[in-house]
Amino acid sequence: MRFDVLTLFPDLIENYFKFSIMKRAVENGLIELNTVNFRDFTHDKHRRVDDTPYGGGAGMVLMAPPIFEAYNSIEKLDNFEFIMLTPQGEKFNHKLSLELSEKKQLIFLCGHYEGFDERIRLGLNPREVSLGDYILTGGELGALCIMDSVSRHIKGVLNKEDSSLKDSFSDDLEGLLEHSQYTKPREYLGMKVPEVLLSGNHLEIEKFKNKDRKLRTQKRRPDLLN
Amino acid sequence: MRFDVLTLFPDLIENYFKFSIMKRAVENGLIELNTVNFRDFTHDKHRRVDDTPYGGGAGMVLMAPPIFEAYNSIEKLDNFEFIMLTPQGEKFNHKLSLELSEKKQLIFLCGHYEGFDERIRLGLNPREVSLGDYILTGGELGALCIMDSVSRHIKGVLNKEDSSLKDSFSDDLEGLLEHSQYTKPREYLGMKVPEVLLSGNHLEIEKFKNKDRKLRTQKRRPDLLN
Repeated sequence: MRFDVLTLFPDLIENYFKFSIMKRAVENGLIELNTVNFRDFTHDKHRRVDDTPYGGGAGMVLMAPPIFEAYNSIEKLDNFEFIMLTPQGEKFNHKLSLELSEKKQLIFLCGHYEGFDERIRLGLNPREVSLGDYILTGGELGALCIMDSVSRHIKGVLNKEDSSLKDSFSDDLEGLLEHSQYTKPREYLGMKVPEVLLSGNHLEIEKFKNKDRKLRTQKRRPDLLN
Repeated sequence: MRFDVLTLFPDLIENYFKFSIMKRAVENGLIELNTVNFRDFTHDKHRRVDDTPYGGGAGMVLMAPPIFEAYNSIEKLDNFEFIMLTPQGEKFNHKLSLELSEKKQLIFLCGHYEGFDERIRLGLNPREVSLGDYILTGGELGALCIMDSVSRHIKGVLNKEDSSLKDSFSDDLEGLLEHSQYTKPREYLGMKVPEVLLSGNHLEIEKFKNKDRKLRTQKRRPDLLN
């Protein structure tokens, strides 16, 4: 999988790939990261990438030319998707994450506290994606969330131990929520691990877990029960 | 506003505050960031913070003691909220972001590809929050999204130019979506700015914008129209 990120803050993106699973995925050649600062494509002598909106109104608008030129500078693989992060886009979720993981290349356009000139939409036809119903300063955290989430579906990115957890987490969104979990110590500040989990009785343990999952889902996410 | 983040990757958190609006907010004393690596609170000679789950099952579980001790090491201000990032939590949104911005301190607990020992929930009673219906490797991106979003509501964090855009963005979630925007040049690759936006006729411009907002909302987010 190749990720290309158009951003004014390439260091912010690259830094995330210096830790944990993403670092390992890059080192193992499973993920390739390329950042493009679209400020490098401005023809303005002050290197500006935005200007005031025609017709008046608040805020600044990202100009089309630097974005087009930065986008065109990126080598496209056979099977790619171009994603623009915006609160107006379709909502990112587990299903979309799985779908995007089938691509060979994801190209991200991150704005930064400003709107996009409409001709970016009209001319480059990005898939517009939103992280959720909240406002962020820029598209960078959105791109990072999508890259993190998508990478988890790519074969080899998670090792065996991570993988098993991946499955239980995915359950959280596809079926019942995960049951409560306990590890050492057996007692902490007067709080004990439920006896049944220590019993070695696998049938009873399964019963306990299933009951717990149902109760938890009913309480927290009744929408998943339908 | 003070942010305290319990994480195994403090650098990942701190790095985000080296850019853009968050950097300025810290420099101006509007935001104070403190990270706590809960691995520093383990009593295990291998510095482990997780172990296998009682009753069997896949994945690892974050142990309670290092989390309790790390949490207790944090000075609490009068009006704080303790937030645990988990896919089982209530969904983060614009409304919750506004609510959290009224606090004096937000303390975040970020797990990293593993579950939480149930006694963390029982004993520390965190508010459980989810970024959306997708799986991320850890809680760090969730904490960053919440801190970014919440900071935008704090007086003085956004300057005048950012603020005005903030309002139009918030509109995206509270009313109609923002209309299409255009800036220089007037024509690019054959795509022209709509004549009306160049007309100087404010009444016609407002009509154009309102119509555009309605159409856009109908097409992209009909749920907002109700």
